[in-house]
Amino acid sequence: MIGRRTAIRLSDGRELIYFDEHPATDRTGTPDTRDLPPPPPTAQLRYDPLVDEWVAVAAHRQTRTFLPPSDKCPLCPSTPDFASEIPAPDYDVVVFENQFPSFSDRVAPDEAAALTDLVPVKPGIGRCEVVCFTSDHTSSFGALPPQRVRTVLDALADRTTEMSALPGVVQVFPFENRGVEIGVTLSHPHGQIYAYPTVPPRTAAMLSAARRHISRTGRNLYADVLAAERKAEIRIVGTNEHWTAFVPAASRWPYEVHVAPHRHVPDISALTAEERDAFAPLYLDVLRRFDGLFDKPMPYIAAWHQAVTTGSDRDLGYLHLQLFSIRRAADKLKYLAGSESAMGAFVNDIEPERAAELLRNHQA
Amino acid sequence: MIGRRTAIRLSDGRELIYFDEHPATDRTGTPDTRDLPPPPPTAQLRYDPLVDEWVAVAAHRQTRTFLPPSDKCPLCPSTPDFASEIPAPDYDVVVFENQFPSFSDRVAPDEAAALTDLVPVKPGIGRCEVVCFTSDHTSSFGALPPQRVRTVLDALADRTTEMSALPGVVQVFPFENRGVEIGVTLSHPHGQIYAYPTVPPRTAAMLSAARRHISRTGRNLYADVLAAERKAEIRIVGTNEHWTAFVPAASRWPYEVHVAPHRHVPDISALTAEERDAFAPLYLDVLRRFDGLFDKPMPYIAAWHQAVTTGSDRDLGYLHLQLFSIRRAADKLKYLAGSESAMGAFVNDIEPERAAELLRNHQA
Repeated sequence: MIGRRTAIRLSDGRELIYFDEHPATDRTGTPDTRDLPPPPPTAQLRYDPLVDEWVAVAAHRQTRTFLPPSDKCPLCPSTPDFASEIPAPDYDVVVFENQFPSFSDRVAPDEAAALTDLVPVKPGIGRCEVVCFTSDHTSSFGALPPQRVRTVLDALADRTTEMSALPGVVQVFPFENRGVEIGVTLSHPHGQIYAYPTVPPRTAAMLSAARRHISRTGRNLYADVLAAERKAEIRIVGTNEHWTAFVPAASRWPYEVHVAPHRHVPDISALTAEERDAFAPLYLDVLRRFDGLFDKPMPYIAAWHQAVTTGSDRDLGYLHLQLFSIRRAADKLKYLAGSESAMGAFVNDIEPERAAELLRNHQA
Repeated sequence: MIGRRTAIRLSDGRELIYFDEHPATDRTGTPDTRDLPPPPPTAQLRYDPLVDEWVAVAAHRQTRTFLPPSDKCPLCPSTPDFASEIPAPDYDVVVFENQFPSFSDRVAPDEAAALTDLVPVKPGIGRCEVVCFTSDHTSSFGALPPQRVRTVLDALADRTTEMSALPGVVQVFPFENRGVEIGVTLSHPHGQIYAYPTVPPRTAAMLSAARRHISRTGRNLYADVLAAERKAEIRIVGTNEHWTAFVPAASRWPYEVHVAPHRHVPDISALTAEERDAFAPLYLDVLRRFDGLFDKPMPYIAAWHQAVTTGSDRDLGYLHLQLFSIRRAADKLKYLAGSESAMGAFVNDIEPERAAELLRNHQA
């Protein structure tokens, strides 16, 4: 579906890739004219011995761009008056290295020993990219035409393949944060991709659960969960030949939908052209139902769970998109307070079957 | 320190306990005059097979009280014009069962079988209580006199002992959520206590880490972390004979302080009178430094991590208070977006050593 892929370098050395739908598009004539300072060093990973998890400390991110005026949007195409992150005067889908990344390959010279004997540290070697879905500043993912959704998937597949091959990267995580309610600092429709240097805690939990299940049953855990939901029907929001959208039976968020392919694949790169095309109408329908629930744009996180990049655990992964919102009523948000933030114990105020019913009943 | 403990029943059968500082205080003459409906049934616990965790589904909590006007505050003492949750015309510290609890002993008659073969369910048998620190609606924990902090600790010790003995309760979790920024729905200074029927995910992670450490070294993990921080000094915020306040080396929140006793005790009940008295000045000092960081009340979560109530894992626990804020700058909050909420991978924009320095330098 991608007509042409053009990779350039921004003035500070960061990579930018245009994914254009028309093969004739030429992006070579518009270099980055800005005089940018060198990008900051990568974050430091610190080991938290109390819970056996790594935390990234990225002090330079404090200065990142925060809700700029729309004529200074760094994700809009450049104009004669303003040079944005994207040098071209227009684009379809564009991906570039984040200017304020949590992870990169730029290791600070003083990266050093443990903080205490119990707290080893290491450089957060990985990569963080920004994915712009459209040049239209006021649009949203849910308003994209299906062909554009396909182009976005193709771009994510390209990035997943490339970043999976980077030294030290163990998982590639494409996601979209949408809405000021969850802290989005740029309103232009965009997503992000994190290439992690350590297995994130939720992935680690999913892997141990999947490992136990396969050793007990010989089967993939997520495939069994999906089969059980398709059989139970009551939590299904929508389905087509290649994908099913359902509310998980033990959903922890007020409104949460998984969109999963019927075929067990490790990541977006492994989806066929037909599967990629079939994703768009179903996901766009779910997003419209999300926005329709309270008749205003839903704040949401859309998270692509992909298999880890290497090792025997790769077979345990099963690609799926986890879409969830913190809005629990028209004027109320779900906050992660004491029980959730300090103990990890979630209390969901909306019954998953009720959430599925409300989503199904809405005229999308 | 408690002068008198008086337990009564509210009109819907929920228990309320006055912890009065003066032994002569008589609370028997003010019964609850309201005509309350029966309290709702407890939440349903659903097993999430994908991550091996239990999620509580508590649909009735959607209707809970949301930022009432101050003359209708349910946590103020009752007046001739308004009957609140507390029948008495005044109080020191009062604890009562939450009217909209996530966990209670009231099991709905239709509590039943698994949702699918992979998702067993069970009733969320436990208990949720509200702790009012003062009858002064406009005060805050940080403004309490040290004697009142001692009374609060005594009340928490009482509740920890009683709730630990309830059937099915595996951990007692006292905490305070403070500030609308983290979703507090009642501004009157108060905390909560959750008596959990399943081991919360963060506790489970702490237990496995502590189990591995003790089998390798023969020592308690938290005790070793505390000793290492006291030796390193750089992240210490304050200390006295019985307690140390420090920023954890791998802190995941912009501002996070642990306040830990020097002696290894499982829970608040096990603290001596002297240790309880010594907690107040140090914690009040830390809270004043928190509020001083940005010259306005800090939104925060204060979480008492206590040992599990029974079994051999009880020895692995080490009482400590985890205090943390989501404020990362005067006008910016830390949001849990894609990486944190979907993957559990935290990125902290404030270096822990810098946070400790800022807290130390502030004139409390």
